[in-house]
Amino acid sequence: MRIARFTTGGEPRYAVVDGEPGHEELVVLTGDPMYTPGEVTNERIPLTDDVRLLAPVIPRSKAICLGKNYEAHAKEIPHRGPASEVPILFLKPNTAVIGPDDPIVLPHYSDDIQLEAELAVVIGRVCKDVTAERAEDFIYGYTCANDVTARDLQRAEDQWFRAKAFDTSLPLGPWIETELATDGAEITSRINGEVVQSGNTRDMIRNVAQAVAMASEVTTLLPGDVILTGTPSGVTKLSHADIVEIEIEGLGVLRNPVIRR
Amino acid sequence: MRIARFTTGGEPRYAVVDGEPGHEELVVLTGDPMYTPGEVTNERIPLTDDVRLLAPVIPRSKAICLGKNYEAHAKEIPHRGPASEVPILFLKPNTAVIGPDDPIVLPHYSDDIQLEAELAVVIGRVCKDVTAERAEDFIYGYTCANDVTARDLQRAEDQWFRAKAFDTSLPLGPWIETELATDGAEITSRINGEVVQSGNTRDMIRNVAQAVAMASEVTTLLPGDVILTGTPSGVTKLSHADIVEIEIEGLGVLRNPVIRR
Repeated sequence: MRIARFTTGGEPRYAVVDGEPGHEELVVLTGDPMYTPGEVTNERIPLTDDVRLLAPVIPRSKAICLGKNYEAHAKEIPHRGPASEVPILFLKPNTAVIGPDDPIVLPHYSDDIQLEAELAVVIGRVCKDVTAERAEDFIYGYTCANDVTARDLQRAEDQWFRAKAFDTSLPLGPWIETELATDGAEITSRINGEVVQSGNTRDMIRNVAQAVAMASEVTTLLPGDVILTGTPSGVTKLSHADIVEIEIEGLGVLRNPVIRR
Repeated sequence: MRIARFTTGGEPRYAVVDGEPGHEELVVLTGDPMYTPGEVTNERIPLTDDVRLLAPVIPRSKAICLGKNYEAHAKEIPHRGPASEVPILFLKPNTAVIGPDDPIVLPHYSDDIQLEAELAVVIGRVCKDVTAERAEDFIYGYTCANDVTARDLQRAEDQWFRAKAFDTSLPLGPWIETELATDGAEITSRINGEVVQSGNTRDMIRNVAQAVAMASEVTTLLPGDVILTGTPSGVTKLSHADIVEIEIEGLGVLRNPVIRR
């Protein structure tokens, strides 16, 4: 099931997405299904230009990201060492989140902002110290994420706050898919229609369940928290006026324009 | 003015703290003064054992921390290089926050958890790209913080998520002081009554206004966001059953027991 957050001008609402790509309809729900059981209403809205999809979730607490979770990407940023026994984990704040079609605003302090296509896991229930075996019980669903990164600062600076926590550095969308075969989904990114990353989630060093387990060993996960599971190789620089697309098989396409103010 | 968040058994409430140390009374407020103008009620509650002070703020978005903001501390952790031109910034999630008298729970994966006494700035108004000159306009007040750190993991791991983002790693309290001379406040920490850190906020490499400016250059700051301004030298290992106190002149004492489960 696909759950979208959207607006037609007023407050954000939630809907089940029905129909094939290009012909989707929103079946409007009452409430926020992440926190309260949403009930289906009789209202159906075609997904046209009058509807604006929003980031399907704004974490109330945190987005936790795995670094170097695909071997081929670990090799393309060797200055941080190889993919290691101990995974790299870091945070993005909820103020970094944008939704579909929202602009990625390049921060003035970097000359090398790059895209990173990632599968994002959305947590559905409070948990701590979850084993990989039980992790699925705490997952609400999945969405596409772009871990937008200032590569020059990532290289130069000790901690990645300036490289990865800036406003608009976490596009999420287009919706949450509650059922996804995460053990073998194609993950692709395109700039202006040209494919730059082409990977498969089966090549993750730690899988979705292990990622949830690792994060929850450190910190309590809350409903709406998001875990990004790393990016395949092919990370590429973004420029003003680019259109970036992140596509995950079985999920959909997250599209954002890029601007430099 | 001192603003406390407290409970006498029910929902958290807010109060102005009146009276001298050891004889404080809580003058109860309506609402949450961080978001709505709180009005003073006729209810006065002596600050006795029946009252539990809570973390004075739980960030809705983030705590941003400055690393190596006191020269003497930068020298005692030389493995991360000297205090540099470019400051080290990193995040703690709101799930790390605990209040006065709440236990710091030592995570099982570290053998060297240390205290770090810090002055915390509490943001009062939404801001982005604030200059140091205007930073004060966006500050709500100040509180004591303990940037509890797994020093062994900080040394061993690339990013500091496991070293610094674990549950209970961010004690805050005892209340928010809205007026504080941050250019020369003594900052002290004690373990079981013995002083281990003794510094002064005048020795910060970047002062409070510069810290707000640096953080807001990267990310939108929201009311309730917290900025930790670094720790003086003397960081010391914590053990099960220790009592830790962070004291800042003009502010108060934040006290937490330490436990290993």
